[in-house]
Amino acid sequence: MNDGVAVSSASSRILDAAALREAAIFRDLPSVVLMDLIGIGEMRLVREQEVLCRQGEFADRLHVLLEGQVALSNTAPNGVSAVVEVIRPGGHFVLATVLAKLPYLLNAQAVTPSRLAVFPAAPLLALVQRAPDLAAALMRAEAQDFRALVRQVCDLKLRTTAQRLGCYLLSLSREPAGNTANLRLPFDKRLLAARLGCRQENLSRAFAALRSFGVETHGARVVLHDIARLRDYAEPDDLEDGEFA
Amino acid sequence: MNDGVAVSSASSRILDAAALREAAIFRDLPSVVLMDLIGIGEMRLVREQEVLCRQGEFADRLHVLLEGQVALSNTAPNGVSAVVEVIRPGGHFVLATVLAKLPYLLNAQAVTPSRLAVFPAAPLLALVQRAPDLAAALMRAEAQDFRALVRQVCDLKLRTTAQRLGCYLLSLSREPAGNTANLRLPFDKRLLAARLGCRQENLSRAFAALRSFGVETHGARVVLHDIARLRDYAEPDDLEDGEFA
Repeated sequence: MNDGVAVSSASSRILDAAALREAAIFRDLPSVVLMDLIGIGEMRLVREQEVLCRQGEFADRLHVLLEGQVALSNTAPNGVSAVVEVIRPGGHFVLATVLAKLPYLLNAQAVTPSRLAVFPAAPLLALVQRAPDLAAALMRAEAQDFRALVRQVCDLKLRTTAQRLGCYLLSLSREPAGNTANLRLPFDKRLLAARLGCRQENLSRAFAALRSFGVETHGARVVLHDIARLRDYAEPDDLEDGEFA
Repeated sequence: MNDGVAVSSASSRILDAAALREAAIFRDLPSVVLMDLIGIGEMRLVREQEVLCRQGEFADRLHVLLEGQVALSNTAPNGVSAVVEVIRPGGHFVLATVLAKLPYLLNAQAVTPSRLAVFPAAPLLALVQRAPDLAAALMRAEAQDFRALVRQVCDLKLRTTAQRLGCYLLSLSREPAGNTANLRLPFDKRLLAARLGCRQENLSRAFAALRSFGVETHGARVVLHDIARLRDYAEPDDLEDGEFA
């Protein structure tokens, strides 16, 4: 698995409680439930571009991303695809679809080599019946996934592309204090444009527009020189209750 | 309740199984569970403009809309609101938020005089524990709400305003066969523009653009003269598994 982005080697091919606790949906579960999950789950290492779920097929497993990146997209009848979200480590996908036993609405494809924990639907649903802690955790995760999508809808309806890009860059900056930040875009600009819902040329224009708000770019490297000013312009949500990831 | 749109009179102030079965989330439940729901729920008649949920407050009840229309919106830090969805009779709202015991992410406001069935969170959650049929129905409804939002995200990312309007008009036309349809816009153009995520002037332009695809408008009355042609242009989703309503 040496094609570009590093993914842990064979030593981490076995699921363990520490790995599962890195996933937001499992973080607060008692160890005994994690052990049950380990009993039904398996680790998967996948290559860049590998397809994990195909729109329209029956949702037969829940995926939790431990390392790497996975893009979720939906293909319209005319063949054009929209990127709904890019999942980062600690995130999960197709939860609601698996719990409701529906067909996948989204394609999931590895953007980089990735490491995943995969839980087949049937034993997972049986475990949900036996473990109220797990049922509660998954219901809460579903609600947070839903809320992240509500935010994305509002984002698309209310903000310009430049403001959406600004909010996205602010979400990448994890510095708790200070007015400047150095970031790396986690994926290429083609994918970033698709995630933001714009064409690539509009993304370039948006980056140009953000220059006057202290945003400097060198390829994938981005410096935010004046976070307060960028926040004033982009107006990110101040609600904080979990991301769709 | 005679301010514009008719809402059933006092005779229907008591919840009954027939009324609840009109709601998609309850449709397939056994009668014994519906009786339990009637035991904890209550009917509410509300006036036009009445606020039912306020963003940020604790979600203390599930709402099912029996008659009327309710707009769900989110207000950004700068005070601008986005309309996420307009709920029609048979729809529900704030399900995921109630099940996860989170604060409301959305404001809910009656667009017209409306009749609702309201279920307080605590007894509803207790009933979910006792009635696996209800738990399964609500989990499935959550998943369908999620899918409807995924579609809306894709719609906003992939389609022009005119295409989005075309898809919306097609969704209002319930004629199973035939190539023409007569519709009434269910709410005013200001709200329609907000739901589609555009300014009112862009909505007017979108209606104008659809004229060449056989869309004729007279105020709230809309005639689709060539559904096949409009479908070719707007490319609505062919996936059918429930709406966010």
